[in-house]
Amino acid sequence: MAEKTVKDTGEFGCIRKITHGFINRPEWVKLGSGDDCAVYTVPDGMDELISTDTMVEGIHFTAETMGPCDVGFKLCTSNFSDVAAMGGRPCGFVISAGLPENLPLAWLEACYDGIREACRRYGVNLLGGDITGSPGGIILTGTVTGMVPADTAVKRSGARAGDLVCVTGHPGDSGAGLEVIFRKEERKFPRLAEKHRRPKPNPELAWKLRELGASAMDDISDGLSSELNEISHASHVNIVVDGEKIPVSEETIRFSQLIHQDILHFPLTGGEDYELVFTIPRSAAHRLQTFSEVHIIGYVEEGNGVVQLKQRDTMHILKPEGYHHFEK
Amino acid sequence: MAEKTVKDTGEFGCIRKITHGFINRPEWVKLGSGDDCAVYTVPDGMDELISTDTMVEGIHFTAETMGPCDVGFKLCTSNFSDVAAMGGRPCGFVISAGLPENLPLAWLEACYDGIREACRRYGVNLLGGDITGSPGGIILTGTVTGMVPADTAVKRSGARAGDLVCVTGHPGDSGAGLEVIFRKEERKFPRLAEKHRRPKPNPELAWKLRELGASAMDDISDGLSSELNEISHASHVNIVVDGEKIPVSEETIRFSQLIHQDILHFPLTGGEDYELVFTIPRSAAHRLQTFSEVHIIGYVEEGNGVVQLKQRDTMHILKPEGYHHFEK
Repeated sequence: MAEKTVKDTGEFGCIRKITHGFINRPEWVKLGSGDDCAVYTVPDGMDELISTDTMVEGIHFTAETMGPCDVGFKLCTSNFSDVAAMGGRPCGFVISAGLPENLPLAWLEACYDGIREACRRYGVNLLGGDITGSPGGIILTGTVTGMVPADTAVKRSGARAGDLVCVTGHPGDSGAGLEVIFRKEERKFPRLAEKHRRPKPNPELAWKLRELGASAMDDISDGLSSELNEISHASHVNIVVDGEKIPVSEETIRFSQLIHQDILHFPLTGGEDYELVFTIPRSAAHRLQTFSEVHIIGYVEEGNGVVQLKQRDTMHILKPEGYHHFEK
Repeated sequence: MAEKTVKDTGEFGCIRKITHGFINRPEWVKLGSGDDCAVYTVPDGMDELISTDTMVEGIHFTAETMGPCDVGFKLCTSNFSDVAAMGGRPCGFVISAGLPENLPLAWLEACYDGIREACRRYGVNLLGGDITGSPGGIILTGTVTGMVPADTAVKRSGARAGDLVCVTGHPGDSGAGLEVIFRKEERKFPRLAEKHRRPKPNPELAWKLRELGASAMDDISDGLSSELNEISHASHVNIVVDGEKIPVSEETIRFSQLIHQDILHFPLTGGEDYELVFTIPRSAAHRLQTFSEVHIIGYVEEGNGVVQLKQRDTMHILKPEGYHHFEK
């Protein structure tokens, strides 16, 4: 029997297949998906957050780089990461799926398994969506809503001269993981491939860093170079980073050496790590020590938006070099 | 000189070109687009609404049927209409644009002119977005947030036996307008083409209908047959509609006659009108008379989700026949 496609199943049939296990925080939902809108509430004293992020087949993923379950999971976490980057917690999510009509129904179901897994992990309610045809491959758009205590959202523009510059985790693992997948080296570097396919932002850590006084924060979606430039530019300050303090994972070091790549290449330009880069007053330094995943990599100076990288005894200007759509 | 494309301009260049005139209700916005998330508030005592809707080139529009400004306008109003259908008011909007790299920058700018026009008209804040490449034509996804007084959102499921069934405006004009455009009859029927390109939902009227006691409501996006079936199905009631009471515009009647089409064809199956269909207790009938755009077309009976259409002295079962993606 031929494989069932989304066309065989129809728009409403597809929706019936995937609509279950959507609500993880029922106390915030008055009406879930299925009507013209979902109806939800936010506790008193909270500001609300919103952001949207898209994954396009052939640009953000291919059948070779990611399975359908990974695609669904990453659609969620790349969006949830934007809420974490404000020091907030993600609460609600809606998805628009543009699907080629010959797409196997099984692909869509597996993608929604990944979506459900991510929403359950992060306590997020799936509040609705839209399915349309797509003449040119799969396009998935997620929109996340979140909350943060009133007037405390951590912007990019809050870095001040004297602040420390910190990152969480090991930026570069996801970019290295993509290269691992391209080079079919997954058996040697499975953890890097996993980091590319299933990035796991940490909104709880971000929430605590906000409470500790983080002055500016970004999630690392386009590589550390790009994010540092965004913070320095938005905050009208200079940033100085010590290359030797950037926490590169042992696997990314080994893989970089294997392919004769500079060890900082993936951390600076790789992107899609969804780790955090933030600035914080020096007075919080001692309390940062309780967070093993936080690494101090530099400091903020008076200035006009320049990022400098110290390597051994030389200083380089660090330009934003992350991947920008339509740009080299 | 060659026409400038979105590729020439780059993702961030495109964003710079379009990011102005985004905020129409500043009292609800603490941080607009440009950071990881926008930050906004909702007045006390409100429930929140969210919905998402996508327009795909080749499916929802082509260069022949709609200009870029129309596409932007309709992306907004098709989303805002979902909020109106709950008796709410639209407040915030985010957009994800998947764009072919050879798309002229001028197309994108004109599209955002239409978006700004719709957001200004409806007092909606544009809170952010995302631009990516698209290998298969333009795909635009909008996500709207809205508000409605706590516990008053009008669902599809609230219709009760004895209620009246009503519609606003003239359903069918948009569907007829699309056929007018296909047949190049625009000079004879300019108002119908305009109704297809620039549908204008009426959240203020919807707000009043909610206050009057509307028990169930839907916006007419897929044709009256489909929406009536959704209400009867969700509410576990039957609906009886009098074909002669369906308010068909004089232009749609003339155009239907010209092309030898049944006069109810476009109202029942056309879609994209973004008018309202609603049920309301009979006790509100006298107050409905003050709304010239509201027409009573039938009533609700005990039952199990069947919609019947009375034409002269015969009764027909009315099936949902609107346009469903991936379905005939």
